[in-house]
Parts: sequence; C-alpha cells; structure tokens
Amino acid sequence: MRGDTDNYRISISSLKSDMDSRGVGGGGGGGGLAAAAYTNPGLSDSSVSVQPHAEFQGSNDFILVEENQRRTTKDAIKSVVPWMKRKANKAFTKKMLYRRIPVLGWLPKYSSSDAVGDLVAGITVGLTVIPQSLAYSSVAGLPTEYGLYGSFLGCFVYILFGSCKDVPVGPTAIASLLTFQAVNGRGPEYAILLCFLSGVLELLMGLLGLGFIIDFVSGPVSSGFTSAVALIIVTSQVKDIFAIRVTGTTFVEQWISIFSNIHEISVWDTVLGICCIAILLIMRIVATIKIGPPEQSSDEEKPPLDDPKPTFFHKFVNKFLWLFGTSRNAILVVLGACIGYSFFVNGDPPFVLIGPIPPGLPEFKPPPFSVSNGNSTASFVDMVADLGSGIVVVALIALLENIAICKAFANGKAVDATQELIAIGLCNIANSFVQGYPGTGSLSRSAVNNASGVRTPLGSLYTGLLVIIALLFFTPYFFYVPKATLAGIIIAAVIFMVEVKVVKPMWRTKKSDLIPGLATFIACLVLPLEIGILIGIGLNLLFILYHAARPKISIERLTSRSGVDYLMLTPDRCLIFPSADYVRNLVTKHSIRQAAPAVIDCSHIYGADYTAATVIETLTKDFAARDQTLVFYNLKPSVSSVFEGLSPKEFVVCYNEDDLDSLLKARDVFKPKTILST
Amino acid sequence: MRGDTDNYRISISSLKSDMDSRGVGGGGGGGGLAAAAYTNPGLSDSSVSVQPHAEFQGSNDFILVEENQRRTTKDAIKSVVPWMKRKANKAFTKKMLYRRIPVLGWLPKYSSSDAVGDLVAGITVGLTVIPQSLAYSSVAGLPTEYGLYGSFLGCFVYILFGSCKDVPVGPTAIASLLTFQAVNGRGPEYAILLCFLSGVLELLMGLLGLGFIIDFVSGPVSSGFTSAVALIIVTSQVKDIFAIRVTGTTFVEQWISIFSNIHEISVWDTVLGICCIAILLIMRIVATIKIGPPEQSSDEEKPPLDDPKPTFFHKFVNKFLWLFGTSRNAILVVLGACIGYSFFVNGDPPFVLIGPIPPGLPEFKPPPFSVSNGNSTASFVDMVADLGSGIVVVALIALLENIAICKAFANGKAVDATQELIAIGLCNIANSFVQGYPGTGSLSRSAVNNASGVRTPLGSLYTGLLVIIALLFFTPYFFYVPKATLAGIIIAAVIFMVEVKVVKPMWRTKKSDLIPGLATFIACLVLPLEIGILIGIGLNLLFILYHAARPKISIERLTSRSGVDYLMLTPDRCLIFPSADYVRNLVTKHSIRQAAPAVIDCSHIYGADYTAATVIETLTKDFAARDQTLVFYNLKPSVSSVFEGLSPKEFVVCYNEDDLDSLLKARDVFKPKTILST
Repeated sequence: MRGDTDNYRISISSLKSDMDSRGVGGGGGGGGLAAAAYTNPGLSDSSVSVQPHAEFQGSNDFILVEENQRRTTKDAIKSVVPWMKRKANKAFTKKMLYRRIPVLGWLPKYSSSDAVGDLVAGITVGLTVIPQSLAYSSVAGLPTEYGLYGSFLGCFVYILFGSCKDVPVGPTAIASLLTFQAVNGRGPEYAILLCFLSGVLELLMGLLGLGFIIDFVSGPVSSGFTSAVALIIVTSQVKDIFAIRVTGTTFVEQWISIFSNIHEISVWDTVLGICCIAILLIMRIVATIKIGPPEQSSDEEKPPLDDPKPTFFHKFVNKFLWLFGTSRNAILVVLGACIGYSFFVNGDPPFVLIGPIPPGLPEFKPPPFSVSNGNSTASFVDMVADLGSGIVVVALIALLENIAICKAFANGKAVDATQELIAIGLCNIANSFVQGYPGTGSLSRSAVNNASGVRTPLGSLYTGLLVIIALLFFTPYFFYVPKATLAGIIIAAVIFMVEVKVVKPMWRTKKSDLIPGLATFIACLVLPLEIGILIGIGLNLLFILYHAARPKISIERLTSRSGVDYLMLTPDRCLIFPSADYVRNLVTKHSIRQAAPAVIDCSHIYGADYTAATVIETLTKDFAARDQTLVFYNLKPSVSSVFEGLSPKEFVVCYNEDDLDSLLKARDVFKPKTILST
Repeated sequence: MRGDTDNYRISISSLKSDMDSRGVGGGGGGGGLAAAAYTNPGLSDSSVSVQPHAEFQGSNDFILVEENQRRTTKDAIKSVVPWMKRKANKAFTKKMLYRRIPVLGWLPKYSSSDAVGDLVAGITVGLTVIPQSLAYSSVAGLPTEYGLYGSFLGCFVYILFGSCKDVPVGPTAIASLLTFQAVNGRGPEYAILLCFLSGVLELLMGLLGLGFIIDFVSGPVSSGFTSAVALIIVTSQVKDIFAIRVTGTTFVEQWISIFSNIHEISVWDTVLGICCIAILLIMRIVATIKIGPPEQSSDEEKPPLDDPKPTFFHKFVNKFLWLFGTSRNAILVVLGACIGYSFFVNGDPPFVLIGPIPPGLPEFKPPPFSVSNGNSTASFVDMVADLGSGIVVVALIALLENIAICKAFANGKAVDATQELIAIGLCNIANSFVQGYPGTGSLSRSAVNNASGVRTPLGSLYTGLLVIIALLFFTPYFFYVPKATLAGIIIAAVIFMVEVKVVKPMWRTKKSDLIPGLATFIACLVLPLEIGILIGIGLNLLFILYHAARPKISIERLTSRSGVDYLMLTPDRCLIFPSADYVRNLVTKHSIRQAAPAVIDCSHIYGADYTAATVIETLTKDFAARDQTLVFYNLKPSVSSVFEGLSPKEFVVCYNEDDLDSLLKARDVFKPKTILST
C-alpha cells in the first residue's frame, strides 16, 4: 500500500526547475524589458534580490529568491577571492571617499546663500550652546568650564566628517548624566579619558559597521529611557534650585534626601530658580508666536490669490520674536549675571553663584592615561576598570541620541549610521585633547539649528568660534551667574524630554509596547541607567523571541475542486527551532482529530533550520505510519532544500492548485487504514 | 495638488468591512457547512484561530484573523472575569485530572499481556540500571551506593505521574556530571539537597507551564552539549582505567594531568578496563545480530507468500542474543566481581576495587537543610548559595534530556512537557528523601525499555524492586567489582553520545547551524557546562534576532493592467522595531531611484509594533512630500489598525488587483512634481 503512493510522490527537483522557468525566469517579453530597465549599478550594494517580473501574477508564487542558498560549497569557496576583491575595491572607491568625508561633497558647491544661512544658524546655536554647556557640566558633576571645553573642537571636526547638517556636537543632558554615573565623582581626568575611550569605541564600531546595534533599541524603550533620564536630571538640579544638600545616588534616595532637608531651603535661590524656569517657559512660547497672516510654505504651488500676504512688519516682528525666544538661555544668563553682579558689588549675594572659572582656552594635550591623587597613582588599567561598562554605555547612547536627531531632520533620506559613528567618535577623540567630556548631537540645539536655516555642517564653525570667544573673554563675567539660573535652564530644557505624549499613540497602535516602555522607565529610575536600559531592551527582545517561538497557525477545513475534503494548515512565519515542535504538535493534533489529508501552506515560511528539518522528517514519518496524506503546498525551494537535507520519506511538495487537487484525488482512493485516536 | 489626491485615498474602515464580509465571513453556503462540520469543542484550548472557508481562493486574502486585536479596552476588561472562570473551570476538569495523574487513564485498562510486557521490560532495565547506577555515582563524585539510592523511589513515583511509558527515572550520565560540577566535592549532603531543590524547581516550572523554555534549545546546541558532556565523562573515567591521579577540573587541565602522570599507569587496571570496553562494544553488536529470515513487521498487511518465515529456533536465538547483549552491563559486573573476588581471596588484587558499600536500604528522612562539617555549620542559605546556578541548570537539563527521550518514543503523539516537568520534579523530590542525587530519564535505558516491549509505566515497578533487592542482598558482592570495570561501562555507554553523525545532515540542511553546534561543543569543553550551553543558546538566539532585524525584500518593476509602471516591494516577514528602519531605508532608496509609484506588498507582514507604526508614518509623510504614490497592498487589518493608531497621512491600503490598478491609474495622471535625487 505504501508502495503505491510512491507513484504520486512528486519530485521536488523537477518541480523546482519548473518553477525556475515559470516564476522566476520572468513571464515573457515584458519581463526582459523590465529587467533591462532595471540595470542600476548602485543596487548591487544592498542585500536585495532584484528579479524581473512582467506580470502581476508572477509574484504570488515565489517572491523571494535566495540564489546563494543553492550554490554548492565548491562554488562558495571559489567565489571568496573575487568577493574579497570586490569588497576591497568598494572600500576605496571615490564614492566611498565622498561618503566617509562628506565635506568633499558639499564644500565645492558652497554658495553665498549657504554662507548666510550657516552664519545666522551658527551664531544662534552658539547663543544656546554656551549657557547649556555651563549648565550641563554641573549635571556631569564637573567644574563649570569643562562644558565649554567640550563644545568647540568637536564642532570643527564634525564639519569634516558629519553627514547631517543639523547636528551641533557638544555636551548634552543624557551624555552628561551618563558621564556623571560612569565617573562617579572620581575627578575630571576620568571624564576626559571616558571621552577619549568612548570616542575610540565609537570610531571602531563605525569602522566595523556595528551601527545596526541601535536598531535593537525600540521606540518605547528609547522613550522610557529618555523620560527617566529627564526626571533624574531634574532631580539632580533641585538641590541648586533650593540650595540644599542632597545625598544619595538613585532617584528615590535623592528625593528622600530632598524632603528630609526641605527645611534648609534658601528662599532667594528658590525664588530665582522658579522665576528663571517660568521666564524660560514663557519665552519658549514667545518663540512660536506668529502675528499677521500665515506665511505660505514654499512647497505649496498655487496659493489662493485672495489670502493676504504678510507684510514686512509682520515678518520682522515674527523673526524678532523667534530670535528673542530662541536665545532665551543666553538672555537669561546675561540677566542672571547682571543680578548676581549687582548683589555682589553690594556685599554677599543672597544666592549661590557659579564662582571663578579659569579664563582662556584649555591646554591642548593628550587625555590623561594615568592619574596621581596625592600619594596613590591610578594606572590606565585601573582607570578603565573604574569606568567599566560606562565606556560602552556612553558610546552606545551617544550614537542612539545622534541617530535619533539625524532621523528627525533627514526629510526622508536614509541616515548613514556608520558615518555618524565615525564622525561622533572622531569628535569625542578630538574633544578629549582639549579636556572635554563626552558629547554628541543635542536635539534641542539641532532644532534651533534647523529652524535658523542652517544649510551645511559649516554652521558649526561659527558655533565653535563663539564658544572660543566666550572662553577667551567672557569667563570673568560667568562668575556672577547664579547657580539657580543654570539649574532653571536645565530643568526648562529637559522637562520636555519626559515623553508623556507617546503613551497615547502607543496605546492606540500596540498596547503591549507600553510594557517595555514602562519597564525601561521604571528600571532606569530605580537602577543604574545602563542596567535599566538593558532590562528594557532584553524585555523587548523577549517579545521577538516569543513571536519566533509561537507562530500563528490558521486551520481551515477545505474541499478541493474534485471534492476531496482536506485540512489546510497555514503557519504565518518561518519554521525555526523554537517554533518547530510547536507547529508539529499542532499539525499532528488537528490532523489526527480531523482525520483528513493535511496540507501545510508554506507560503509564509521564509526560512528553516536543521532543527525544523528534523521535526519535518519526524512529521512526515508519523503521517506515513498512519497512512495519512501530508502535502507541503507552495514551499519555497530554499526552504525545501533545507528539509530535503535529511532525505525525509514521503515528503510531498506541490506548487499549484491543480497539482494539489490531483494529488489529493489520487490519494483519496485509499482510505486511511488507521487513524490513531488521541 | 495634494488636495486632489485625497479623492483617491481609500478609507481603510470601509475596506476592512468589505473584507470581513468577503474573505473572513466565508464564501457562501459551503463556508457555513464547513463551519458547522468543525465545531470541535476540544479546539478551544489551543491558540489557533479556526475560520470557515469553503473555497480554496478564500484563504489567499487573509489567512490570519486576530479577533482580540480589534476589541475595545472595555470589552477586554469585561471579559477578564469570564476568562478567569473558564481558566479555573479548565484547571479542575476530569480531563485535566487524567492528564495530571496519567495512571488513572491506563491502570483501569491494564491487561495481562500488558503485565507480561512490563515485567520482562522492567527486569531487563533493572539489569542495566544497577551497574549504571554504581558507575554514574563515580561520575557524580559520590560514594557508589548513592547511585542505587536514586534508582528506586523515583521509579515508583513516575508510575503515577509519568506520561511516557518508556522512561525509567534514575541517575544519568549528564545529570551525574552536572551534579559533580554543582556539588564540587562538598559532600553527598549537597547532592541530596540539589536533588530536592531541582525537583522543587521542576515541579514549580511545571505548575507555571514553563516547559516551553526548552524550545529555545535547538538541535545543534543540544548535540554540541551532549557531545561535550560525553567527552568530559570519558575524561573523568580515564583515571579509573589507568588508575592514576588526575588533577584539574576542566577538560583541558585533566588531559594535561593525564599525560603528565601517564608513567604511573597501572598495567592491570588498564588491561582490565580496555578489555571491558572491548567486550561491551562487541556485546552491543551481538544484541543486534539476527539469524534466519527477517521477521515481518506487524504493520505490513500482505507479506509476500514466498518469503520464508523465521522458525522457532531462529526466534529463540535472536531473542537470546538480544537479551545477552542488552544485559551486558550486568553480566560484566558479575564477571568483574568474580575476577575481583578470586584475586581478593588470594591476597591483594592487582587492581582497584569499589570497596565496601553500606548494606541495606537508605534511611527515609528529609533532605539535609543544613550540614555541619567538623566545627563549622553551613546553613540552608549557605548551601543554596554554594549550589548556585547549578540548581537551575540541573533542572533545565534534566527536562531537556527527558523531553528528548519522550519525543524519541512518542510515535507522532505530542509530548506534554508540563506533565513531564511535574513528574520528574516529584521523582526528584521523592528521591531526595532516600538520599538519591538528581536523576531523570536515561536515553540508553529507555531504548532498552522500549525494545523489551514495555507497555505502560508500570514496568518501572519491577526495575525499582530489583534495585531494592540489590541494595538488600547484593551490596557485599559489589565490594569485589573492579573500578576499571565500572569505568569501562561508563565509557562504552557515553562514547555513543558524541554525535558526530549529526554533522553531515546539518551540513546538508543548513550549514550555518553548525556554528551554534560547534560553539556549544567547544564552549562546554573549555568552560563550565552551564556557561557553555548558555553561550550556545545565546548565539542561536542572535540568529533569530538577526532574522527579525533584516528581512529580505524583493523588488520588482511591474506594470499594472492599465499600463502604469510601478515598483513592487515585498518584505518577507513582520515589521517590528529592529527591522522597521531598515525596510524604510530600502523602500526610500529604491523608490527615489526608480521614480515610480511604490507598492508595498504586505501579504507576509503578520505583525507590527509602535516603532514600525512611527516609521510607516514618516514613510507616508516623506512620500507625500515628494508627491510620490505609496500604496500598501494586501495589508492585514490587524497590522493596518496598528499603523492607523498614529493616523498617518496619505495612508493608502488596497486589497485586490483591480483596486490597485485603478488607484495607480488615477494617480498616474499627475506626474510626480519633484523626485529627490540621492
């Protein structure tokens, strides 16, 4: 009996060649035409298989062709040398050079209108970066001047290597907090070494093409992390607003300490700090006020003629309001310095001032590879051990932050994560030679840069120059800036990083995404940041693994054209080790219960592995032992070849309804002899 | 212009309801009939969506219906109470009782032929388990009697709770080695506590339904692990074969030690050990010898009449050879004991003997929850801390081993991992009360059991009784068994666990699966076993994550029926956070280059998340900004509703070729205004 069915065992190899000629080879003249129209040399550098298809129907059979799957080992070994040659050639093309040093691309085309845009934007950003740098260095737990030290050389380096015009490199809230956690009060030398090492790590990751790592940080995890960071930074600034002592390192400990020391509160500092925050928030709104009729955006082609156009006055006021609002940090620092000075000359000011800042540029020297503290000397190894995982975390989070910015301003263009890693890495290495601490692109300053009409990365030149001018001439005046003002600047900036607004869309799109988001948020608040974000990422990856392990299988009782009842089982994703047994159990269970020929629709199975092949072998053997028909319908040749590696018995594959129908009809003549009961 | 296209923006909600009535609601009368034929109450306990379909075509539209995706939150909250009720009801049904205590199912149907089969099988297994238990206790680093202590009570417990008739519970090579690594020479009390704790953990995992964890151990990883374990066990026995001192704990250290001490080799022990191995291997072959014509297997219906039938003599000799070969371990132990005794009575034997074994059954008492060693006392917490991750590893690997056995003898039936966890957990808890160390089902003994014709788990009763008899009456004779004999038994058993034979099929199915397999093998040899297997599993999971992150996208240039050229992009799997940006970049890049309307074929996209939704929103926005058409073709309603959560602009979905054609034709009238160049 089993022998008879052999006649209906369809040879997979003949079917495959059939498919090759029918589906993949293109459907007639149109296919050739399409293929000719598609000889785009640039396409070869992506992992996409391009295939000619003239008719729409063709794509339903096999959309995916994995040619390399079907090559023999000998071919594979033979092709290694040309492959390496191609790789080497690709690495040294002009195109690659332009990609790795983007300045070569835009500088020759630099126009005077570009220059104006970049100048205005660079100066506007400079007015933001100076007060922010002063403020963020306190988040990083470093003396105030280190913020400025990290804000100019990196800008210049980014002009050469940066691929995104809107990114001004410098200290950011997140990088500062991570620096604080990694340095842990050990002194600025550690922060500078951290800057150097994380820069080297970023550069290495860029050269090795590891930028894809950040793909594994999902939106919810990223939002949860950013929100937690914002709250932690706000907490760290409360002590300067209230001018009280705060002990403890975690979020919870710090708030307990704040509440227990609340009686020591200094009224003057508190009033000043809260006023600063209020002023900043109001000025933030001022920047968005527009008077007069709305300006027509330039991409609308036919503005209705009866709409009034904004007058010159309207435009001037709008521009002024925007500039006034945007330079709010600089204005507030100047105001604060004036108030501080006026109190200082009349005696002891009632609030804490920044105090003396060493004037002039930092010394240009290599980062400290060892540090002697009194009688003990920490070697390079000791320092690296002390910084520990902080180096990796700073590098990765800096990349994450930077790519997020690039994406926000990419306007639909692809972001080159590799190039950004290289650029940010070189910026940080450079910064470590002028005693800067780790920095990256800042979202708030990028937004200012973009809104100011920046045209090329050259805008950073003016920003960097402004910082140098500040270091050379303005440090004596920073003495008088009250600490509460800086704390206010930080709080008013980071408060908008708490992404409450993403909760609603997340709820509306995919509720389960709130779990990793909230978990990251809470874990980052109660645990060290790197552990927190790892928990979030890990939890999120568990979702993927669960998806891989538990495919959905739809089960339908169908009747073929010639009237044979059969069971159609359709798994919706690939068959790999975590899911293979699950699928087998379901198929076995239902096919035994229904006692009908089983057809597994493999249209959605895009991959399989050895474990799945063993399971399929067992499955076909079990079906054969029960004399129950099992047909694999529309199994991709690449997957089929994986299954065939174990030469399973009774492995029947078919590719279209007619074949299936005749197969089921032929087999239906023999009634199942024994169907096991469960 | 953008306003005009609004007319062609297809409302997704109307389409969805259209689909509901067309695709999901079933195609006419036949659909209803199929649905009626399919009201199988047992189906409700699996996560499979069953839907009626009369026509084959119907399944091409939407194979997967995720109804719960479309319910409102209110509905979800309302349905919690009935859901819990259902769960509670399900947990206390008669069916569940029979599932959890399988003896209730088979004992009432127990027949006399079952009894004969079980008796023969039980005694045959007993003759294997006694010598193996004696031997494996030396692998576990425990006195010889502990192997026997762990070989009887567990057997009795498994009769009640075990779901697989072929599993005889007792010490195994792998569990012994893991016990050795976890106990680390601290004494038998630790091994007994380990047995209790891993049993409790297994029971808990069973009650919580965590049996699915072993799905994440793939075939290659499992093979690599088993092979490494076999080599490590062989290494551990070499010292008894050569009768030399061996220091070091890792595989490499031990071999270095063996080679440096090779001059201390004892000729008598070595000769005896090697002879034992040779005899065992020959007897193993003897067991498979068949004389006379082949027996007809019972499932062949019509044996050709001209074939000679085996005579009674043939059958008897075959049976005898098989029994002789199968009880080779017992025969060898008896032989060894005789040789040892004959030397012993004539003075000092030239080889090492097992030595005295305390006679009688072990005391029935709770496992030791604290242990005092001279003047220091280790509390329960200290002991647990000492055992550490060993508890988890023993529990998981025991489950892995046991499920592998159940699957090997399941004959196409599904294996109930939950029930096996509960059974093995209870067995180990019971064993810990009679001073047994962790055990599980042993593959070699299961094979003997199966080949001896076991019918129900009751066979274990006779095995357990035989072990009790051995403990009561034979312990004085075990004194004379040479250690080299036991070492020979172990080596001859585990040498077949080195799975060289899987390399070839792995190479032929999926070459990349060799990587996790080899990595596990090497890591297990050079690192502690638990670290080794974790590395293998981790590496294997990285493959899954890579698959999730880098879908294959096929790109075709097609022409619609009305002659509109368009680009068809088909991602082959779900759109979630690691892949969303990658897909977006590819889509953007190719659609900009080709400057044609882009159609994303979403037939294979079975899931999406918030991150993907944000990316799709950006993508539609970018296409709208370029006035380039972007159509989502055949997007599953459940995925579509995820994307719609962010209310993306210009989000066009269509479900059949006619719609697509008219959509493309209508849009084609307006030539793209600007196509950005890369």
